[in-house]
Amino acid sequence: MNIVLLEESEKNKTCWMIRDQRQLAHICTHLKAKVGDTLKIGIKNGPRYVAEVVTIAPKEIQIKALKNVSVPEKHPITLIVALPRPKVLRRLIMDSVTLGVEKIILLHSFRVDKSYWQSPFLKQINDYVTLGLEQAGDTYVPQVECYQRFKPFVEDILPQLIQQKDWAYVAHPYVENTLPKEIVSKNGIIIIGPEGGFIPYEVDLLIKNGCQAIQFGNRILRTETAVSYLLGRLSV
Amino acid sequence: MNIVLLEESEKNKTCWMIRDQRQLAHICTHLKAKVGDTLKIGIKNGPRYVAEVVTIAPKEIQIKALKNVSVPEKHPITLIVALPRPKVLRRLIMDSVTLGVEKIILLHSFRVDKSYWQSPFLKQINDYVTLGLEQAGDTYVPQVECYQRFKPFVEDILPQLIQQKDWAYVAHPYVENTLPKEIVSKNGIIIIGPEGGFIPYEVDLLIKNGCQAIQFGNRILRTETAVSYLLGRLSV
Repeated sequence: MNIVLLEESEKNKTCWMIRDQRQLAHICTHLKAKVGDTLKIGIKNGPRYVAEVVTIAPKEIQIKALKNVSVPEKHPITLIVALPRPKVLRRLIMDSVTLGVEKIILLHSFRVDKSYWQSPFLKQINDYVTLGLEQAGDTYVPQVECYQRFKPFVEDILPQLIQQKDWAYVAHPYVENTLPKEIVSKNGIIIIGPEGGFIPYEVDLLIKNGCQAIQFGNRILRTETAVSYLLGRLSV
Repeated sequence: MNIVLLEESEKNKTCWMIRDQRQLAHICTHLKAKVGDTLKIGIKNGPRYVAEVVTIAPKEIQIKALKNVSVPEKHPITLIVALPRPKVLRRLIMDSVTLGVEKIILLHSFRVDKSYWQSPFLKQINDYVTLGLEQAGDTYVPQVECYQRFKPFVEDILPQLIQQKDWAYVAHPYVENTLPKEIVSKNGIIIIGPEGGFIPYEVDLLIKNGCQAIQFGNRILRTETAVSYLLGRLSV
């Protein structure tokens, strides 16, 4: 946690009460904060501050704003990912948010186990987003959307998304095209398949609807690793 | 698992028996392989093959080589990382190996909990390396070394390592220098601190001994994420 993230309703204040258990534990146990110490805080979808600890009680910590700090910029990347295993989902969302992805779309695909869509983890996406923002020191909540049907998404929704972007790449280990060395625009869409990859029908449908299939080296990465690696690759 | 990795003693054969429980389970349950199917296999520190399944018995699968396949190249990167929490260690080793790092050094640092060095996970590093290689389709085992004392490592060992490399960067979120846009040589050392970062004394000692402190954007990443992100960044 590199900032304490407060709810959007806390905007337009200069003094706050922290009452969230997890945040209190972090501040008291991990940071060992005392009255007079400074804390980095942020308001969801709002500004970031350096704040001062005013009072510490067992169940609440009062802080007040000292100065405004700039919020890191987002990458104008939409990340479309085949829904991973529930345990991976948590890290995937956290890391994508930490890395500053603007929008995340979770998509069904042939090799996605249908039971994943029933996972209780899916209901905790907002928590993972918060963790990711707190790690990055970011405050702006990216959009997260779920599509449980591959074909309607790719045929009806994806083309509209691509129109607003400069490129859409499907990462696919078994094609010849590689990621261009210089990517002039960062305003694009990255699509990453499930463990075992998209099936040929899916790759074909994605290509037919405006995507380019590219590989990025001859190593096959796990979904989460691929996301961080590709965002690093694109951040140059 | 994108290849089945066999022990080094299996070199110079053209026909093999797979008896490892985990590998048998993967081949039978996940791949549902039948006699006559092809399998991707590799010999530790040796070649990769496409092989054919000859016989399947409950506790062993016989395969024979069909053709040689090229092994992905390593990145000439030495990754030096403050020993992470045991649970993170597994993924960190796996991912670094999958991404093709040539050498991994686990290092103590002020903010590393001393108990981490007693973790049973440390004894399983070879297993994590195997998993990383099997994910990548790589066969060459990278060197993994541990140094439990920060100062002697940085003063006595690190300068020798740096001499063989073109650069050594310490990732540090609070410095002004950023990673240069074009990194001509890929032959370098990346140093990543613990959760909470290196303390100023450590950063100073690293700099005094030949490292450059750089930041790579104003987002603070988790160790594992930083590794994949930086390797993506450097792979251009």
